[in-house]
Amino acid sequence: MPELRQDIVTGQWVVVAAERARRPTDFTRPPRPEAEDRATCPFCPGNELMTPLETLAVRPTGSEPNTPGWSVRVVPNKFPVFESGGPPVSGTALFPRRNAEGIHEVIIHSPDHDASLATLEPDQVELILRVYRQRYRAHRENPSIRYLHFIINHGRESGASREHSHSQLFGVPLVPPLVHQELAGASWHQTSRGECVFCRITSEEMDGVRRVVLRTKKYVVIAPFASRLPFELWVLPREHQESFDMVDDEQLEDLAHVMKDVLGRYREGFDDPPYNAYLHTSPCDGTEYPYYHWHFELIPKLTTPGGFEMGTSMWINVTTPEDASDFLSGRSQGAPGL
Amino acid sequence: MPELRQDIVTGQWVVVAAERARRPTDFTRPPRPEAEDRATCPFCPGNELMTPLETLAVRPTGSEPNTPGWSVRVVPNKFPVFESGGPPVSGTALFPRRNAEGIHEVIIHSPDHDASLATLEPDQVELILRVYRQRYRAHRENPSIRYLHFIINHGRESGASREHSHSQLFGVPLVPPLVHQELAGASWHQTSRGECVFCRITSEEMDGVRRVVLRTKKYVVIAPFASRLPFELWVLPREHQESFDMVDDEQLEDLAHVMKDVLGRYREGFDDPPYNAYLHTSPCDGTEYPYYHWHFELIPKLTTPGGFEMGTSMWINVTTPEDASDFLSGRSQGAPGL
Repeated sequence: MPELRQDIVTGQWVVVAAERARRPTDFTRPPRPEAEDRATCPFCPGNELMTPLETLAVRPTGSEPNTPGWSVRVVPNKFPVFESGGPPVSGTALFPRRNAEGIHEVIIHSPDHDASLATLEPDQVELILRVYRQRYRAHRENPSIRYLHFIINHGRESGASREHSHSQLFGVPLVPPLVHQELAGASWHQTSRGECVFCRITSEEMDGVRRVVLRTKKYVVIAPFASRLPFELWVLPREHQESFDMVDDEQLEDLAHVMKDVLGRYREGFDDPPYNAYLHTSPCDGTEYPYYHWHFELIPKLTTPGGFEMGTSMWINVTTPEDASDFLSGRSQGAPGL
Repeated sequence: MPELRQDIVTGQWVVVAAERARRPTDFTRPPRPEAEDRATCPFCPGNELMTPLETLAVRPTGSEPNTPGWSVRVVPNKFPVFESGGPPVSGTALFPRRNAEGIHEVIIHSPDHDASLATLEPDQVELILRVYRQRYRAHRENPSIRYLHFIINHGRESGASREHSHSQLFGVPLVPPLVHQELAGASWHQTSRGECVFCRITSEEMDGVRRVVLRTKKYVVIAPFASRLPFELWVLPREHQESFDMVDDEQLEDLAHVMKDVLGRYREGFDDPPYNAYLHTSPCDGTEYPYYHWHFELIPKLTTPGGFEMGTSMWINVTTPEDASDFLSGRSQGAPGL
């Protein structure tokens, strides 16, 4: 029997209909797009001038900007979704619009065209996460930005336009609706129950084990109770922490291992699937959100949302998070329903 | 310069970043999945016993149920997302859950494996829409159902599990969030402005022309101002009408022509692209929604949402609705940005 599950943070209901995963088409993937030619990959060393000039690069002291030698490189997106400085547009009461003010950067994960977070050395992953923290701190005072949204689209079937591993940072001039929903839920829980809802979920899950995929000194990785899609995972710091820019070096080191480990489990379990990953953290809009608790959300792209999802804003998930967690934690062999 | 546009009905902000559509990868499609074998297609005539027994079929008087001869056939979904009769599940305060009570039906559009709404005769499309109305009326009194969601996933890249053209009907035990948002916006507009927001949009768009794709005696088709995705279209009845079960035969006949026409424009313009289509209509929860205005929403699947969309619940649209409307109405030649 399919069931409706509610995410206690956002209030969203998800349909968990695991019977459907018995259909053999559920986890088959379309043929992969053709591999890109490295000679024309703007993220490869030697092609630095194919991107806008670099904003930041981790490179040996004294080496020239926009030349090879870097290990992580940050450049403005060539086709920004948010940018500043255009002539202002104005809408009408019926058709409101405004400039998409903000920033849009690309963080190139390494010089290696074929590497990904699952295959890079932990030190390199840590360096990337350090750059995240640096970019957060660099932009948080920008008055036109209210939220900094870090994402990874891995594999071109995930929405990535380039296969060379990279993150994107969107500086958004409003608090996105999904983050707003999480903040509202977390605030309500703090006020009415006197505790952080994410701390509470983490502690309940660690008592229960059934949806825990991994735990380390600093993090716990769970398949959330109301997972929207098969094998969705949340990476939560065990200690309460509102915003990602508060992470210390020890936390970053552990996080690098955790990200590499769980993304490696996707890679292993589903033959390097496309996935989306993003950070949820406090808005940088001048308000304090002490009841919020930053975390990463990871979602492999194994199924295709359709007219149900588009027309309702609800999700149908064909794999229970309990099965997903069993599989990804190694408690069971073989993908569920296959 | 990219801009933010707000859907005045739902309040949702969309980023329209048309500069991005200049990237050649934007509208390329992955190779199509292999064609299905008709011998094993459960929706083809002769294979009637491969589906659950039919609920309804339009077939010659006296012909046997679950045998060939039908022109439209309704069957329960073999792997229902909503169904009734399971043992009740109960959740906890932190992990709320309930049975996904309801119904889930498949409406097989015609016996022809290769036909679609764009290629079927208008009479046949009208018959399918008549079946929609009939199914709406058949289920609207069901106390466990609050919303009847009709969808079409065309092409397996759209989320369809079968290529043989069909609709799905979900009888959902709650009012879906997106419908709820539309109702709230429409109610607000009615209260504060004294008019139906959809009637108002229709009238403004018909005055302005720039986003109108098609108009007939009974309908107008527009590329909505805050289109979430490239070439999104809304099919709106010109006369105010709250719920789809109120349509009369003359409206159905015109609607059949409109749907065939606009879906034919997708087919022509993008080489038979995958698309999602769904009906937005009043909930059947015993409440009146006189301020609501039913309509179809159509969205071809030309781009892939990624971590931005998943993590924010916002959309990035790389084609302006003005360009989309120009192209689909024949006012311009060639897809914009190509």
